Amino acid sequence: MSLIGMDLGGTKLAIAAFTADADMTAHESVPLERRTGAAVAALMVQQLEKFLRLQKGKNDPVRAIGICVPGISNRKDGTVWAPNIPGWGHYPLLKEISAVAPGIPVAIDSDRTCYIMGEVWKGAARGCSDAIFLGVGTGIGAGILSDGHFLRGRHDAAGAIGWMALTQPYHSKYLQCGCFESSASGDGIAKLAKELLHEMPAYEGVLRRSTPAELTAAAVFAAFETRDELATEVIRRCIELWGMAVANLVSVFNPEKIIMGGGVFGPAIPLIPSIAAEAAKWAQPLSMQQCEIVASQLGIYAGCWGAGLLALKAR
Amino acid sequence: MSLIGMDLGGTKLAIAAFTADADMTAHESVPLERRTGAAVAALMVQQLEKFLRLQKGKNDPVRAIGICVPGISNRKDGTVWAPNIPGWGHYPLLKEISAVAPGIPVAIDSDRTCYIMGEVWKGAARGCSDAIFLGVGTGIGAGILSDGHFLRGRHDAAGAIGWMALTQPYHSKYLQCGCFESSASGDGIAKLAKELLHEMPAYEGVLRRSTPAELTAAAVFAAFETRDELATEVIRRCIELWGMAVANLVSVFNPEKIIMGGGVFGPAIPLIPSIAAEAAKWAQPLSMQQCEIVASQLGIYAGCWGAGLLALKAR
Repeated sequence: MSLIGMDLGGTKLAIAAFTADADMTAHESVPLERRTGAAVAALMVQQLEKFLRLQKGKNDPVRAIGICVPGISNRKDGTVWAPNIPGWGHYPLLKEISAVAPGIPVAIDSDRTCYIMGEVWKGAARGCSDAIFLGVGTGIGAGILSDGHFLRGRHDAAGAIGWMALTQPYHSKYLQCGCFESSASGDGIAKLAKELLHEMPAYEGVLRRSTPAELTAAAVFAAFETRDELATEVIRRCIELWGMAVANLVSVFNPEKIIMGGGVFGPAIPLIPSIAAEAAKWAQPLSMQQCEIVASQLGIYAGCWGAGLLALKAR
Repeated sequence: MSLIGMDLGGTKLAIAAFTADADMTAHESVPLERRTGAAVAALMVQQLEKFLRLQKGKNDPVRAIGICVPGISNRKDGTVWAPNIPGWGHYPLLKEISAVAPGIPVAIDSDRTCYIMGEVWKGAARGCSDAIFLGVGTGIGAGILSDGHFLRGRHDAAGAIGWMALTQPYHSKYLQCGCFESSASGDGIAKLAKELLHEMPAYEGVLRRSTPAELTAAAVFAAFETRDELATEVIRRCIELWGMAVANLVSVFNPEKIIMGGGVFGPAIPLIPSIAAEAAKWAQPLSMQQCEIVASQLGIYAGCWGAGLLALKAR
C-alpha cells in the first residue's frame, strides 16, 4: 500500500508517494505560476490524478491522502483559509479532492502542524512525545506535539505564535501580524533593517546602498556574514526575540525538543546556540535543561513528509 | 461507588468524597500546622483512612483516589516535588498512599492540572475541549486542556507560565521565578509596590505608611479600591502583563475559554474586562474573538474537584 502527501505552498505544489514505513518512493514539484482560487485546486487534482495512476500502474494502490496547506484547515467543514492564495477564504478543498479519490480517506492540515508531523515521522523529532517546530519564514508559526498529541485548538488555529507578545510597550505596527512576527520573521528582518537605517544615521555600510527591494532578509544575512554593523544589530535583536519565544514554548510545554525551521533557518542555523543561550536566561530552568534546540532535518520537504504522516493517520 | 479527591496546599489539606456524577458528598479541611516531610504524608494517610472508613460505613466503597499537589508529580516514579513543603524534593507519595489503599488506583497531579480538571468537571470549563486555568496566587501557573487532553509535558512540568518572557530587557530579578511571576503574582504585586515607592518619591498615600510586612497584594488591592495613586499604577502594570500572558495563551492554544483563578482572582475579578481588552491588542485576532475570559467558578475548591476528576479517570 502507498500514501500520498501533497504540500501546497504560496508559490509551488509538491506531491510525493510514501510507504507506510516512511520511504519516499516518488516526488514532484510544480510551480503555481500565479494561479489563484479554483485553478490552484485544479492543479492539485491534476497532480493527484497523475500520482493515483502512477501508483495503480505499480500495482500499489493509494490507501490515504494527506494535504498540507499554507493557512488553516477547518476540520469541521473541510474548507481551507489560505491568506496568500487569492480566493481561498473558505475554499471547499476536501470536497474537491475527495471527488477524484472515491473511497480514499483525505486529511488536510495546516503547514505548521504538518511540519512537526514531518519531523516526527522522518526528521529531528523521531521518537519524541513532546516537540515543537518553530517555523520562521515569511511569517512565523509553531507546530506542536504535546504528550503525543498534535495540537490544533478549538478552531484549528493553535500555534499562531507570530502573535506572541514579547516586549512592551504595544506598538501599532503589531496590528497586522503580531509583536514577534513583526520583527523576527523573514519579512520582519527586512522591516527592522529599514527601521535601523533611520535609527543609525552614521551607518554607511552595504545595506545603506540597497534599494528597498534589495533590502531583504537574505541581504541582511549576507551582510551579517561580513560583520556589517547594521546587520549585526538586526540579528542581535532577532536572537533576543527568538530566544524569548523559545523560552516561552519551553516553559509552557516542557518539550524535549524545539526544532527551528522555515526559510530563515536556513541562514540562521549557526545562530541556534546563541538563541538557546538567550532562551536559558528566561525559561523555567529545569524545563530548559530537559530541552534540546535543534535545526529541522527536512528543510523544504518537511511539509510533504508531514502530509505523508497525516495520510498514514487517516488511512 | 465513590471517589476521593485530596488537595494538598502549602498550609492546609482538603479531602472530599464524590460520586461519579460530580456530586460532593463529604468534605473536610485541616491545617498542616507547620508539618514538614513525612509528617505531611502521615496527615494525608490519616485523613484518607478516615474517609475510606467513612465510605465503607456508608456501604459505598471507594473506587479511586486523586491527589492534587502544590508542585510537580513525577508520573514515571510516583514521587512529588513540592518547593513549599520542606523535605519534599522527591517524596515517594504514590507508594505511601497506595500502601494504605490496597487495590484502589491512586493518581497524583500538579495543582495547575487539577485546577483545570476541576473547572472541566464542575466549573467554568464544563463541556470545553480547549480551556486554560490561569492561576495567579503566591506564584503563577497554568493548567491546560487542549483538544481534549490535559497537558503535562515531557517531564510533568508543562504550564510553568510564571516564567513567560513578556518584556525587555532581561532583569536579574527574573532569575528566581521568571519575568511574568516576578511582577504579576501575589508576591510580585507586593514587590512591585515596594519598587514604586522608590520610583514615585512624591507619593504620600496609605502604602507609604505601611511597614514592609504590611505591604501585601491584599493591601495594594485595598488601596486600589480608594483610587490610591501608587496602587493604581501597580494594578495598571499588572493588567498589561496579565493581558499579554492571556494573549500568548490565546495565540498558542486557540482555546474557547481562559479561566482566571488563584488567590489574586479574588480581588482582581473585576479587572477581567480590562485584562481581556489588553489581551485583544496583542493576540491573534480571530482566536481572541473565539475565546472568553472568565473567572474561576470553584475558587478554593478547584483543586479538590480536580482531584475528584483525576480519581474518576484513574478508576
